[in-house]
Amino acid sequence: MSGNLRIDLDRLMGRIFRLGEIGALPGGGVKRLALTDEDKAGRDQVTGWMRGLGLTLTTDCIGNVWGVREGAEALPPVMIGSHIDSVATGGLYDGTLGVLTGLEVVARLNEAGIRTRHPIAVGFFTNEEGARFAPDMMGSGVNQGALDLAEMLTTVGIDGRTVGDELDRIGYQGEAAPGTLRPACFLEIHVEQGPVLEEEGVEIGAVTGVQGISWTEFTVSGVSNHAGTTPMRLRHDAGIVAARIATEARAIADDLGPPQVATVGVIELGPGLVNVVPEAARLTVDLRNTDDAVLQGAEARLAAAAERFAAAEGCGLEARTLARFAPVPFDGDTVDLIARTAEALGHSLKRMPSGAGHDAQMFAPNCPTAMVFVPSKDGLSHNIKEHTDPEQIRAGADVLLQVALARAGVIETAGGTP
Amino acid sequence: MSGNLRIDLDRLMGRIFRLGEIGALPGGGVKRLALTDEDKAGRDQVTGWMRGLGLTLTTDCIGNVWGVREGAEALPPVMIGSHIDSVATGGLYDGTLGVLTGLEVVARLNEAGIRTRHPIAVGFFTNEEGARFAPDMMGSGVNQGALDLAEMLTTVGIDGRTVGDELDRIGYQGEAAPGTLRPACFLEIHVEQGPVLEEEGVEIGAVTGVQGISWTEFTVSGVSNHAGTTPMRLRHDAGIVAARIATEARAIADDLGPPQVATVGVIELGPGLVNVVPEAARLTVDLRNTDDAVLQGAEARLAAAAERFAAAEGCGLEARTLARFAPVPFDGDTVDLIARTAEALGHSLKRMPSGAGHDAQMFAPNCPTAMVFVPSKDGLSHNIKEHTDPEQIRAGADVLLQVALARAGVIETAGGTP
Repeated sequence: MSGNLRIDLDRLMGRIFRLGEIGALPGGGVKRLALTDEDKAGRDQVTGWMRGLGLTLTTDCIGNVWGVREGAEALPPVMIGSHIDSVATGGLYDGTLGVLTGLEVVARLNEAGIRTRHPIAVGFFTNEEGARFAPDMMGSGVNQGALDLAEMLTTVGIDGRTVGDELDRIGYQGEAAPGTLRPACFLEIHVEQGPVLEEEGVEIGAVTGVQGISWTEFTVSGVSNHAGTTPMRLRHDAGIVAARIATEARAIADDLGPPQVATVGVIELGPGLVNVVPEAARLTVDLRNTDDAVLQGAEARLAAAAERFAAAEGCGLEARTLARFAPVPFDGDTVDLIARTAEALGHSLKRMPSGAGHDAQMFAPNCPTAMVFVPSKDGLSHNIKEHTDPEQIRAGADVLLQVALARAGVIETAGGTP
Repeated sequence: MSGNLRIDLDRLMGRIFRLGEIGALPGGGVKRLALTDEDKAGRDQVTGWMRGLGLTLTTDCIGNVWGVREGAEALPPVMIGSHIDSVATGGLYDGTLGVLTGLEVVARLNEAGIRTRHPIAVGFFTNEEGARFAPDMMGSGVNQGALDLAEMLTTVGIDGRTVGDELDRIGYQGEAAPGTLRPACFLEIHVEQGPVLEEEGVEIGAVTGVQGISWTEFTVSGVSNHAGTTPMRLRHDAGIVAARIATEARAIADDLGPPQVATVGVIELGPGLVNVVPEAARLTVDLRNTDDAVLQGAEARLAAAAERFAAAEGCGLEARTLARFAPVPFDGDTVDLIARTAEALGHSLKRMPSGAGHDAQMFAPNCPTAMVFVPSKDGLSHNIKEHTDPEQIRAGADVLLQVALARAGVIETAGGTP
């Protein structure tokens, strides 16, 4: 019975650790920046595993690679994918869990002799992290038509090299054009990269979508004055305006409640001396919500408050949008299927948005898409201490396997589960 | 009639401009850091003028120089003094106005053939600015017993040289010991270095004392987290604690009203990235008041609020006192005399505290002391654009002249005012 099929945890963990040896950092974690020699070595390892599982490989013009296991019918594939590039101080699980769970799904289907109606594709996408080349989610974005291929190929990275040159150098510039890949549905399992599942003691997150992101930089211009000789009423203090904007951002998140978040990660004052009233301030506000109307309301309230604070202090204010992405909702039916499957397998479940970006969001506009989250210890990610317990990985991978089977459609089983 | 005696504005302005040529900066202003070659050249110029006026010079162990015009009786002198060192981007008036007005007072008395009961002394004090060697007001502090001579002589400056070596190098290490100079009273005319007189259209400030100063550095420790994946309730955001402390400092100043001032000149966040919840914050709060009890109340309210904000956010907090000076009240009779004299000369007057430190505060514990302020254009000081109109200088210098005469006691006049 395909419904009893389960992943082989030792094999999956073995592949995670073996891939983690490529670009390994002292003390744990990996550095496999996109299109470096380490990324090439990781790609060679994963494509080797793909070929070993009998998959038919395709590489596209931006270096995305996917391997297809034939289906019984000429249908678009059910796709499982993520990425294998990392940030400079990456963990073992971010991205690789999604790719290697895909391989484990194929391995178990092969062993069980299961044929599916739809083909099953497993892929990894170029430069998801954006740590070497901006923007992030570059490969999946180009593949699904959200980003322009020619523009991305000429993107210059932090070391002065272009995406196109580096793809060519490591031998991963393929020929498949954007639009080649049109999956029947897209599934991605990923570590949460946040503390919610762990904190609530939940095993599986059914991801309902990706939060919209709004980054604004505020620049406040005031007048530098002596801290002792200038009465309060004659000041134009850029710093107090910045502090008020920061507290307003927090108040907005508090008033709106979850899933609204607000973060002030940067505050800089000039000249930055103990006894000088600041003449300049720069701060950034990161606002996120799953509901674009609510997010727009938060942006409007913040902008109005910032103008009010600056005017009251007699300061100038400039606001600049550093980034703006609308929320991406995932497919309700697929989210429901993930939830039902997790519960049927006896796992605790939480429906939750993703606070970070993922390749899945590039597929969501084009095909039914959803994600499975597993807990991140202490919420840590992009950190060599990133960790998820093997039993938590087992739970998530089993859910993904069953959801993929349900979406691909089981035709026949050659034997029982081995 | 000595009551009709007035300063010679052209001569006073001429000396101000001539001294301003020593260490002149392009675009205006001066750089005469204490005990540099430029400071020596300035000292040589001023001591030359002193000798030309017939004064008897004394140099003490920390390089302070004063010249005495004999009185009719063996009494302590009425002293007029300030400093001639500057910050790196100093103006023409800060300090020099006080010294050169003293010389102008002597010049007029000489010309008018006026004898006084008390001697009149004019002096300049070493390293008032503290821009090369810390602390500031070093020379007057040592002279009046507030600072230790041996410790100050071994103080290392920003360029690695000591006060003692540099005094010796420029030839201004004298022999007079601390305690040699015990004036009958101390008078200092200085530019306000703030905007109050100009903003209120007042010509003369009768300075009632120097504000107490309290500098506190707060260091907040939180937890670095992903700005998208970490719900607000699970955050330990060092930045929001810093922002709340900054707004509380402003609220304290607003609630207490003048003369309380509060300045947050430094806010630094770590790691300082748009999409990372800050794990560290450092900020400084500068509180000043003329009333030490009120200042202590402000400090206590701020400390309690900071603790409350940190606790609410689950952050650690350390507070460190960077500087603490009690307010210095000036002599009420002398302040009244300045006020009466200004009004008798037809000038508008404001009684006001000084927000900055001055040599006069070192004399205040030991003898009746007060200061005359004249307006600073746009409140600017420690800036090459520092400016006071000549007519404003005339008004202040005339007040000082008459106050000095009143305190010194006029014995006889050889002739009319020349």
